[in-house]
Amino acid sequence: MAIISLGSMAFDAIETPFGKVDKIVGGSGTYVAYAASHLTQPIQQISIVGNDFPHEEIDELQKRGVQFDGVEIVPDQKSFFWSGKYHLDMNSRDTLVTDLNVLANFNPQVPETYQGAEYLMLGNLMPTLQLSVIEQLRKRPDLVVLDTMNYWMATAMEDLKKVLLKIDVLLINDSEARELSNEYSLVKAAKKILQLGPKFLVIKKGEHGALLFNEDRVFFAPALPLEEVFDPTGAGDAFAGGFIGHIDHTKNISFENMKTAIIVGSAMASFCVEKFGPQRLKEISRQDIDKRLSEFVQLSNFNISLV
Amino acid sequence: MAIISLGSMAFDAIETPFGKVDKIVGGSGTYVAYAASHLTQPIQQISIVGNDFPHEEIDELQKRGVQFDGVEIVPDQKSFFWSGKYHLDMNSRDTLVTDLNVLANFNPQVPETYQGAEYLMLGNLMPTLQLSVIEQLRKRPDLVVLDTMNYWMATAMEDLKKVLLKIDVLLINDSEARELSNEYSLVKAAKKILQLGPKFLVIKKGEHGALLFNEDRVFFAPALPLEEVFDPTGAGDAFAGGFIGHIDHTKNISFENMKTAIIVGSAMASFCVEKFGPQRLKEISRQDIDKRLSEFVQLSNFNISLV
Repeated sequence: MAIISLGSMAFDAIETPFGKVDKIVGGSGTYVAYAASHLTQPIQQISIVGNDFPHEEIDELQKRGVQFDGVEIVPDQKSFFWSGKYHLDMNSRDTLVTDLNVLANFNPQVPETYQGAEYLMLGNLMPTLQLSVIEQLRKRPDLVVLDTMNYWMATAMEDLKKVLLKIDVLLINDSEARELSNEYSLVKAAKKILQLGPKFLVIKKGEHGALLFNEDRVFFAPALPLEEVFDPTGAGDAFAGGFIGHIDHTKNISFENMKTAIIVGSAMASFCVEKFGPQRLKEISRQDIDKRLSEFVQLSNFNISLV
Repeated sequence: MAIISLGSMAFDAIETPFGKVDKIVGGSGTYVAYAASHLTQPIQQISIVGNDFPHEEIDELQKRGVQFDGVEIVPDQKSFFWSGKYHLDMNSRDTLVTDLNVLANFNPQVPETYQGAEYLMLGNLMPTLQLSVIEQLRKRPDLVVLDTMNYWMATAMEDLKKVLLKIDVLLINDSEARELSNEYSLVKAAKKILQLGPKFLVIKKGEHGALLFNEDRVFFAPALPLEEVFDPTGAGDAFAGGFIGHIDHTKNISFENMKTAIIVGSAMASFCVEKFGPQRLKEISRQDIDKRLSEFVQLSNFNISLV
């Protein structure tokens, strides 16, 4: 049993109100892999890096059950680089630099060893690349999860719509849901988006939690109220990794189990934002995760029998 | 066993993107009374109205166990009138008219028949009036709940701070919590506000639910995702009425039971916004309320045992 995970592996330079880092490891695929590997193994990674991507990082991920058969290492080019600066409220950011480097000519190849995987996590990346991976799989995975962002809605909507027809679960944030549907009400937005292909829609609302929609059902997952969000980079990817990691760990794609998967994803996101980059996702132990999950239970459980 | 409820009884003219009403019954005390009376009786009302306040409304409230010994009817003046217009997102509004009328000289008197009540709900009103009611009570209620708003923070902060020292539960929204504490993080805001007097703090976040803070504990109540919010007027008061109504019904002021009280309050608020004014709060039956509460259970319950 395995997850195939497509996403970038890259370097980021990040500035937040709490500090600044010049060049640390990042990328959607990196965050997904670190988060998911706490819950299940193997993670069958599909990505591309340059000659500058640290060997120690690859060793660290491999130790955690992340397979690299599908990761292309280009010897004479640099890894993807992104630089951004967060505003004071941490809800919005400006992109300062995007150097595609190896990503410019990325043509993902699904290795033979990955064929047959039960779950597919399509991390945030060009929709054409996401589609290519889906089409290379001889057996359709039991669940295909897609993460995307407003950038692709603005620049590659037609490609994105083709991908939407082939997936099961879409992960987007509230402003992206509004953009994709042209509806302000998230309930109306969800109805429209569920007609575009996905059977399940997760709308992430940052500090306000997340909503899961499926047919007429809806689930509201809280976000852990945090005193400080240190660096939001990768929080959405960590959420996706926790989500798909829980699904693979439990082999259960029911609505009820997806509720729990969203709580696990929220827990992973809550760790992710505590330090720069994927640092906290590397440090945390199984005990840390269990403790955080019980905080989520405390946070949202109530007894209605007294009413 | 009883609740004393202080609040305005008034007329409102409201414009929302869905329509417009010229002069309908409103006021914080009216909404609190309608919401609370579904859960418990009597509600011992303290308010003031003019000669124009409809007899049928008073009859209707009395039928629901709302007592009027503490409601002054001024024969030669008009009731308080407020007019406002909501913006398209329904999260903000402009006040168009505020005619204080009878409220200008309101000097609330606690009738002898109200002395001994277990619970006190101080609806949104001038802090000096809220303080006056607290000081007239010979036996301190088991729980004093305060609703207030940014207007009083801007115009009567010193009075408001005196009230905060004498209450148990403060109900405010997220922007008010930030204003009162000068902190953006709601966790930090809550810590500061709990040092101003209240033992419990409820931060209402509209469509994003509500947070309950007490010492180091926190609870996150979801809001029901609604397709349309028809008229947000009175939602906060309906929340307060559901909250205090549940507390009086159960006679239990523990943190655990306050969680449930917040869910009941959220359910009442979700009904309130479905039509103009307090109309939906008048129409709903016990079955409607039970059904809505079970929707909240569905919305937020999850099973963590599989992780």
